[in-house]
Amino acid sequence: MKVATIGTGFIVDWFLTAVQESSGISCVAMYSRKKDSAKPLADKYGIDKIYTDLDEMLQDEDINFVYVASPNSLHFKHSLKALQAGKHVICEKPFTSTVDEFDILVDTAKEHHLYLFEAIVTAHMPNYLNIRKQLPRLGTIRMVQCNFSQYSSRYDKFLAGETPNVFNPEFSGGALSDINIYNLHYVIGLFGKPTGIHYYANKHTNGIDTSGVAVLEYDGFQAVCVGCKDTRSECITQIQGEKGFITMRSETSKCADYTIQIGKEKPEHPSIQQNDIALYYELQDFRDIFKIDDYERCLQLLAYSRTVMEVYEEARRDAGILFPADRK
Amino acid sequence: MKVATIGTGFIVDWFLTAVQESSGISCVAMYSRKKDSAKPLADKYGIDKIYTDLDEMLQDEDINFVYVASPNSLHFKHSLKALQAGKHVICEKPFTSTVDEFDILVDTAKEHHLYLFEAIVTAHMPNYLNIRKQLPRLGTIRMVQCNFSQYSSRYDKFLAGETPNVFNPEFSGGALSDINIYNLHYVIGLFGKPTGIHYYANKHTNGIDTSGVAVLEYDGFQAVCVGCKDTRSECITQIQGEKGFITMRSETSKCADYTIQIGKEKPEHPSIQQNDIALYYELQDFRDIFKIDDYERCLQLLAYSRTVMEVYEEARRDAGILFPADRK
Repeated sequence: MKVATIGTGFIVDWFLTAVQESSGISCVAMYSRKKDSAKPLADKYGIDKIYTDLDEMLQDEDINFVYVASPNSLHFKHSLKALQAGKHVICEKPFTSTVDEFDILVDTAKEHHLYLFEAIVTAHMPNYLNIRKQLPRLGTIRMVQCNFSQYSSRYDKFLAGETPNVFNPEFSGGALSDINIYNLHYVIGLFGKPTGIHYYANKHTNGIDTSGVAVLEYDGFQAVCVGCKDTRSECITQIQGEKGFITMRSETSKCADYTIQIGKEKPEHPSIQQNDIALYYELQDFRDIFKIDDYERCLQLLAYSRTVMEVYEEARRDAGILFPADRK
Repeated sequence: MKVATIGTGFIVDWFLTAVQESSGISCVAMYSRKKDSAKPLADKYGIDKIYTDLDEMLQDEDINFVYVASPNSLHFKHSLKALQAGKHVICEKPFTSTVDEFDILVDTAKEHHLYLFEAIVTAHMPNYLNIRKQLPRLGTIRMVQCNFSQYSSRYDKFLAGETPNVFNPEFSGGALSDINIYNLHYVIGLFGKPTGIHYYANKHTNGIDTSGVAVLEYDGFQAVCVGCKDTRSECITQIQGEKGFITMRSETSKCADYTIQIGKEKPEHPSIQQNDIALYYELQDFRDIFKIDDYERCLQLLAYSRTVMEVYEEARRDAGILFPADRK
């Protein structure tokens, strides 16, 4: 995999660290509108080529994968361009702003038998995959709760009157898009699509949600997803079954530490020490799928991403949060 | 205060322990339909009189207070009878099944200048009262989460086909009435009446909620109240403000242990070791209010109870949980 990146935020830094840790993957180019924005990362990771013209980069035959980490609203446009240029794509979460955009990307990828991956760390974490295996031990599930709250480094600026992308509806920002999306992935990855979707958001005057709670109704149980960019808290996720419960003391992006308690027995601590590099596991999976050309697996992951996109869009609309992509 | 009890459940045992610990309060009689049901507790606490005829007990001039701890649906009838007989009343939570019933009790109490107290432990806990004082330090509140989950000792019987009172709509049972009511008191006692009320319940075929989540919408923040009688979990309550957050690692009925974290400073541990006897603090308050004849304070507490009753009834109806009292 010879990857080029789009975007220069801190997530790209993390991505490049994960690339460095992974065999069979290298980063060969970066795109940024301004060369200076990409230079520090290019220097840090020894990347020779910086493009300031995206079309030019997409013609570079040395590149076969594009990692899209631009502002949320541009994920669709950049991913589509890359696919149309014949490149495979790894796109950051949230995948797109709408299901319609998502479907266009998938259709384009399928048409050219190109790989299209959503860079959502949760779904690839060993602890998360183990939690899924443990679920039958909990008996009938009755309640799921996730809380992922992280005071945004840009929130002070936002309160002071600026509008950083992450709090800008024009860039498909907000707490649901940016942080609660991990909780949605966590829950939907375990339990599939809910039958009812509600989102109660704390909205700024510009219409963006700085925090909120999504209630996902399932047959026989409820899942509550809290995501906040305006406050801190302990991030705790619990899955409650009639026979036992799982408590995870970690963000749903990390799945770092969890215990299982069955009945009144002592809590078990089956969680493993995972690699600290957040994007490590997803990259291993993408590489392996690509290596053995397991396109079926790629489509499976896309089907799961689509369910998340459906819930995400419905939750967003339920709270009256509108993005430019809705006007298309 | 010379108290007579109605009911023989474990809560009466706790109440009598608290009476024993309190100066200025004694229990002089117990009512039970069957003498044998009350005898073990009467023996344990040295109570001489057991009545099997309620009207007879209410004529006993040695009694000035009645503690009502019958099944939920009977709180109204028993409290009303006691008030009409000229007795002061301490009524277990949930106060009544409807706001209409509540209003009749309050009107009757006022008419005769009788004291009427709701036995809700949360509102009288020192740690809870201290949390209220700390709230301004948290800045603008954005999110509140309560989880009180306790696997009911009667749930196995319920699953096996029996219908214990606590899971019977005829007795105004269910998770909202029995356990989530503590969370409602916790939140409403701190923040008053919400502007929006939603209850997503897991309902048994008999219509009762074995668990559920109430979302209370406030101006600028959300409060999420999870109450389960069909599963266990760690009971954790968090209050998230822009400047800091409070994490309480305890049921909202106990308020046993909490920490405050402001910004990125180290967590503070201001919670005190409270008396283990759950009903101790409320009894002290009732005794003191009665002693100095502070009827205003009694009415203040009733005003707060009414707000809880309004939210409780609206949440219950939102989930389509109907009680006999609704048909009146």
